Amino acid sequence: MNLTKNTYLLQTLLKNNNITFKKSYIKKKIYIKNAGDLKSSRKNYISFFSNLKYLNLLKKTKADVIITKENFKQYIPKNKIILISDYPEIDFAKILSFFYPQSYYSTINYKKLKLEEITKKFPNLKFGINFYLENNVKIGNNVQIGNNVTIKQNCKIGNNVIIGSNVVIESSDIFDDVHICDGSIIGKKGFGFKFIGKNCIRIPHIGRVQIHKGCEIGANSVIDRGSVGNTIVGEYTFFDNLVHIAHNVVIGKRCIFAGQVGIAGSTKIGNYVTIGGQAGISGHLKIGDNVKIGGKSGVVKNIKDNEVVMGYPAKPIKEFLKN
Amino acid sequence: MNLTKNTYLLQTLLKNNNITFKKSYIKKKIYIKNAGDLKSSRKNYISFFSNLKYLNLLKKTKADVIITKENFKQYIPKNKIILISDYPEIDFAKILSFFYPQSYYSTINYKKLKLEEITKKFPNLKFGINFYLENNVKIGNNVQIGNNVTIKQNCKIGNNVIIGSNVVIESSDIFDDVHICDGSIIGKKGFGFKFIGKNCIRIPHIGRVQIHKGCEIGANSVIDRGSVGNTIVGEYTFFDNLVHIAHNVVIGKRCIFAGQVGIAGSTKIGNYVTIGGQAGISGHLKIGDNVKIGGKSGVVKNIKDNEVVMGYPAKPIKEFLKN
Amino acid sequence: MNLTKNTYLLQTLLKNNNITFKKSYIKKKIYIKNAGDLKSSRKNYISFFSNLKYLNLLKKTKADVIITKENFKQYIPKNKIILISDYPEIDFAKILSFFYPQSYYSTINYKKLKLEEITKKFPNLKFGINFYLENNVKIGNNVQIGNNVTIKQNCKIGNNVIIGSNVVIESSDIFDDVHICDGSIIGKKGFGFKFIGKNCIRIPHIGRVQIHKGCEIGANSVIDRGSVGNTIVGEYTFFDNLVHIAHNVVIGKRCIFAGQVGIAGSTKIGNYVTIGGQAGISGHLKIGDNVKIGGKSGVVKNIKDNEVVMGYPAKPIKEFLKN
Repeated sequence: MNLTKNTYLLQTLLKNNNITFKKSYIKKKIYIKNAGDLKSSRKNYISFFSNLKYLNLLKKTKADVIITKENFKQYIPKNKIILISDYPEIDFAKILSFFYPQSYYSTINYKKLKLEEITKKFPNLKFGINFYLENNVKIGNNVQIGNNVTIKQNCKIGNNVIIGSNVVIESSDIFDDVHICDGSIIGKKGFGFKFIGKNCIRIPHIGRVQIHKGCEIGANSVIDRGSVGNTIVGEYTFFDNLVHIAHNVVIGKRCIFAGQVGIAGSTKIGNYVTIGGQAGISGHLKIGDNVKIGGKSGVVKNIKDNEVVMGYPAKPIKEFLKN
Repeated sequence: MNLTKNTYLLQTLLKNNNITFKKSYIKKKIYIKNAGDLKSSRKNYISFFSNLKYLNLLKKTKADVIITKENFKQYIPKNKIILISDYPEIDFAKILSFFYPQSYYSTINYKKLKLEEITKKFPNLKFGINFYLENNVKIGNNVQIGNNVTIKQNCKIGNNVIIGSNVVIESSDIFDDVHICDGSIIGKKGFGFKFIGKNCIRIPHIGRVQIHKGCEIGANSVIDRGSVGNTIVGEYTFFDNLVHIAHNVVIGKRCIFAGQVGIAGSTKIGNYVTIGGQAGISGHLKIGDNVKIGGKSGVVKNIKDNEVVMGYPAKPIKEFLKN
Repeated sequence: MNLTKNTYLLQTLLKNNNITFKKSYIKKKIYIKNAGDLKSSRKNYISFFSNLKYLNLLKKTKADVIITKENFKQYIPKNKIILISDYPEIDFAKILSFFYPQSYYSTINYKKLKLEEITKKFPNLKFGINFYLENNVKIGNNVQIGNNVTIKQNCKIGNNVIIGSNVVIESSDIFDDVHICDGSIIGKKGFGFKFIGKNCIRIPHIGRVQIHKGCEIGANSVIDRGSVGNTIVGEYTFFDNLVHIAHNVVIGKRCIFAGQVGIAGSTKIGNYVTIGGQAGISGHLKIGDNVKIGGKSGVVKNIKDNEVVMGYPAKPIKEFLKN
């Protein structure tokens, strides 16, 4: 997504977006350039801290302004400006929405390249009818694109990529030799929101999808982009049809996922992992290398390297077969 | 769907559609305006009665003509015209097909508004390329529509609605602040048919889909329209990707369904219900308020308010964890 | 897929495609016309033999050239030319890719019929906007096609077929009275590849999909074409939404598959089989006639005629209910 080049006086930014804080410790005049998580933030960024697990990142963050809860105030480094909120993620999301106005749904900007611009810019590109290509997309050599494909701004498409028909790609980097089959949706906003009392706040998603070299994504599959970080598919990983990959999932190389597999948000999967059809993995788990997960399994806890599991909840295959 | 304004003499209607009955008790000359279920029928309607569960509705129906089985004839009020059939639903379906000729597949009428008609009628509407909009659609303010979207006749789209690319909408009412993500199909004919000996009869679907205020429908999801009544999604209910909602399902408000959830026909789900990824619910069930259903569960019976269930078949979470 | 009319001297063919064999027993000058499996091959074809199960087919094959492993050489009939490989399927796949250059991804040829060609060739065809029709497609009478439909070369569409919007059809024969709902992908390349050390080889798919008379395919479903043989759906079989049918699956007549069912590759299913929602069947199994499979079941072994099964792994319903 495009980063605005403007900066905003902190108080003006908050006022114009109707964001009020319980308390604010604004010790000096500060201009805000952008918002980000603790890790990716730079100077003149606004970030948030709401989980002690990330204390280490807090100590190293370059963000100048931190939104946090009352009882976490003590952990914030002295040189930061502190804003106190009952729901730091929500107030952070509001600021993120300002900097990335389309980040809570979709980045379509209706600025389509004309046919002659496409053929001039990419003279060797093969593409079908009704191709919608936004500005600022890089496309490599020997790429083939089907009908009714939408590729939105700031995407990168490598060499020898094959994209089927009716595919939508946004906020994504597609590396060399990848095949994306018909009807797949890559880079959609993740499924994130919070109910605060009667209100429901959609969480912006400013991350990307990265599909590395040689992968194949089956038909009618969906891969959501990350909320702040990225959703990543490692090289030579293959998905069959109707697979669902949620936001911030990270998958290693040379994995094979059969049809209708689903992976919930933020789960990390190692290399050489095979997953049978219709199996599902809960969110925030860690699956090791060389793991084999049987078809229709439901994985609800971490799995170590080289294990073979099956069942719901998934257990080592020997136990499963014993029952 | 459009109701024909014509009326038809009952005998002529049956003759022209090659519908014959085992017996008919046509005591008087009657003109038929339309067909409907017992509840929605008005005067000059034709309806059917084939399940004693609906005896109460039969007593109050305004329909003038009732198709029923031989052994149910005794329950029909005296003032009705009675048609006796071995398969009342099938003969009713044939009549329904006459009044709603596209109801057993799709309502596409190929009467697309021209681009200049769209921009004149909806001067502030934002829409992508290749937009197909039929006549008689209402669209509110501040609506954003992606590429390759099809919206068929008689749909209503509220204010602040965001519709992704490659979305098909028919026979649907989409209320304010709803997001429908890329590739979703809303209002498709439900999965209904009957095998009678060697024949297979498709059941017409004349109901609608209603998606209430503030909902989100994930990518590549499908929501079927109702057969006679409607399929309903209550306000601020959120679906993730690849969700399947069958005909006549009714879902309450502020529910959350994770990816690849499936709900079979006519099931009713209360408010504040959360359902984990890949879980499924059988048809014709009643799920109470505040119920939590674990990922991958298979629900095969009713669940009371506030229960937390998991497993296949789904049982209270304590029992599930004990095993 | 189109068969090339050219023939190639075997040595030239191998050399031009950089295919080398461990050993070759090329006793005579031979011209190669095409490649195929043992059963479908004719004279001047190249085929492969890597599984003793198919010894019977080997004895009857008309192929002139057989790729096989060292230790299977003894089984090859005397009059054949023999090529020895550690991975016969892979070397065969390379040759198949030469004859069917698009068989390992998609057959789009960008040779779209113009609108006036379509209306001249099919004067009574009803079709929506943005219809992409390649050459050499047969379409019957009384066919209705939605918006944004892609039908690629060499497909056959029967009479009274209804195709929804956003449908992609390739390498397929669609018989009379079939309905294909919105967003479905028919005839996609199957999910086939082999990891050989660090290399990953995609397997070409030159088979077809055949959907016989009267079937219905629900929305956003995917049916892959066969690798060498065909994927077949028998007459009057009905699929609900989001169903996944892998390559070379063969399904009988009058079956009913509810939403989100998935069938893995090469499984054979009899007639009159009903499968509940979200159930899955592993690959290479045989399911008999009149079998009923409960919703969410995971079938991992063959099922005899008339059985009723449920569970994961699926077992006879009485056993399932006992637990």
